[in-house]
Amino acid sequence: MYECAIIGTGAAGISAALTLKALNKNFIWFGDGKLSGKIRSAEKIGNYPGLSMVSGNELAESFLSQIKEMDIRIENKTVTGVYQMEGYFSVLCNQDMYDAKTVILATGVESVKPVKGELEFVGRGVSYCATCDGFLYKGKTVFVVCTEKSLEHEIEYLASLAAKVYVVALYKNVALKSGNIEIVSGMPVEITGGRKAEKVRFRDKEYSVDGVFMLKAAITPSVLVSGLETENGHVKVDRSCATNLEGCFAAGDCTGRPYQYAKAVGEGNVCAHAVVSYLAEQKQKETLSTV
Amino acid sequence: MYECAIIGTGAAGISAALTLKALNKNFIWFGDGKLSGKIRSAEKIGNYPGLSMVSGNELAESFLSQIKEMDIRIENKTVTGVYQMEGYFSVLCNQDMYDAKTVILATGVESVKPVKGELEFVGRGVSYCATCDGFLYKGKTVFVVCTEKSLEHEIEYLASLAAKVYVVALYKNVALKSGNIEIVSGMPVEITGGRKAEKVRFRDKEYSVDGVFMLKAAITPSVLVSGLETENGHVKVDRSCATNLEGCFAAGDCTGRPYQYAKAVGEGNVCAHAVVSYLAEQKQKETLSTV
Repeated sequence: MYECAIIGTGAAGISAALTLKALNKNFIWFGDGKLSGKIRSAEKIGNYPGLSMVSGNELAESFLSQIKEMDIRIENKTVTGVYQMEGYFSVLCNQDMYDAKTVILATGVESVKPVKGELEFVGRGVSYCATCDGFLYKGKTVFVVCTEKSLEHEIEYLASLAAKVYVVALYKNVALKSGNIEIVSGMPVEITGGRKAEKVRFRDKEYSVDGVFMLKAAITPSVLVSGLETENGHVKVDRSCATNLEGCFAAGDCTGRPYQYAKAVGEGNVCAHAVVSYLAEQKQKETLSTV
Repeated sequence: MYECAIIGTGAAGISAALTLKALNKNFIWFGDGKLSGKIRSAEKIGNYPGLSMVSGNELAESFLSQIKEMDIRIENKTVTGVYQMEGYFSVLCNQDMYDAKTVILATGVESVKPVKGELEFVGRGVSYCATCDGFLYKGKTVFVVCTEKSLEHEIEYLASLAAKVYVVALYKNVALKSGNIEIVSGMPVEITGGRKAEKVRFRDKEYSVDGVFMLKAAITPSVLVSGLETENGHVKVDRSCATNLEGCFAAGDCTGRPYQYAKAVGEGNVCAHAVVSYLAEQKQKETLSTV
């Protein structure tokens, strides 16, 4: 049982990890081992205190070398679900399960907003994880929207099972090989259906499908963690970055604007301290209840 | 009229200033031109994202060179009062007055807690500013508690007016010269009196006085800004760092724990964005009301 699971390797996750490490906590940290792609996207950052006019790439390299120096490890895995158990959380990465007393969500904001109907059909024909749910579509027709080159292998995996795979690829240098994959241009406007998702609608066309896979870098936090309260698409937190779920905290872009490095770094720090306070309180309760 | 006045040159103030500058706002920034002494006090900082195992001094130098590079000026002045006017604030630095549409309080936390009775007698025999109120004590007896070497000149100024000056000096290398100054050891436990402050009590002694000067680097924000809501000695703010006073925001240690560089930097950034939103809203209201 870990004391904390941090989800996300953007500025907020990094700050939380550095602080938990400094405070000697036993935590596990999930995300892209090369750090969130968004960090690198900035050309010049004029207002990150301490690093003058740094580029996104330089900032990412500073972060990476600091993490290495502090001997912190990133689990290069995608979290596909977080489940609140009694007094702890189970974090699922495809087939692997990890237990932690607390969770810090630092998942960022999606560059692509959910398509109309997407959230409604999650678990009823809409999935965020090919390796989890792909087997359901053997010999069938699936539709994929993919935002990351690094997730291309999930599409190939689907193609090895399904009869037909339609793909909207929202990244550069698409290199899909399987013969049953068909690239679709444009962006879906709606997923419709009855009990299950049945159609992917575009402004000018539509596809009849058995299942839809939305393969993105960041999953909407409320889909990732069931029961999580959100507000205008952001995780609702208080001043200590606590969410409505006891032991679950959130930091960075996923809690709302401003979408800034400094803000994310600040909240990551606040989260880490909130986790430490929470763990201390829980320990005290346990001690009292066993006396 | 400035668009914003930032008070304090710690990590929160620096972050706010960098962001307001990046957003092209017309602001004035008050504090120690060599930056808050507290920044320099840390031996090694293990969890400031981007600067690995940096010392307080190194961090301060990075901040200073960044401020210089961004062409940002610090007004090397101590703010002695902030007054809410109709739609703006007047910021008083001894005799000088500056007007700003918004205020960011980044005043830090006091290393010395208020003495019992101190806040009660503010304006009735207790003062935070020798150059403001010293003239009231010509030929009289005053008691001074001073936390900063840099404020020693204020004690000498008092000694040039008062008949007798008792001083508790809470800093190193005390170099007071005037013959009517008497150094007192220990720390007062209470200021007592009737309509006005009359006595400074120690555990084992007491002094009859006409006035008391508390000369510190950070003034309690609620004393600085009348009507400001506080909670457990910290400025009460919401998620956007807004205080109970419209147009007045707060960031960093003065808003509460954790007292951390990353947290302060985050809130400074949030404050600056909140100021920009607030200014835009006010402008819109003005436009609407003149139509």
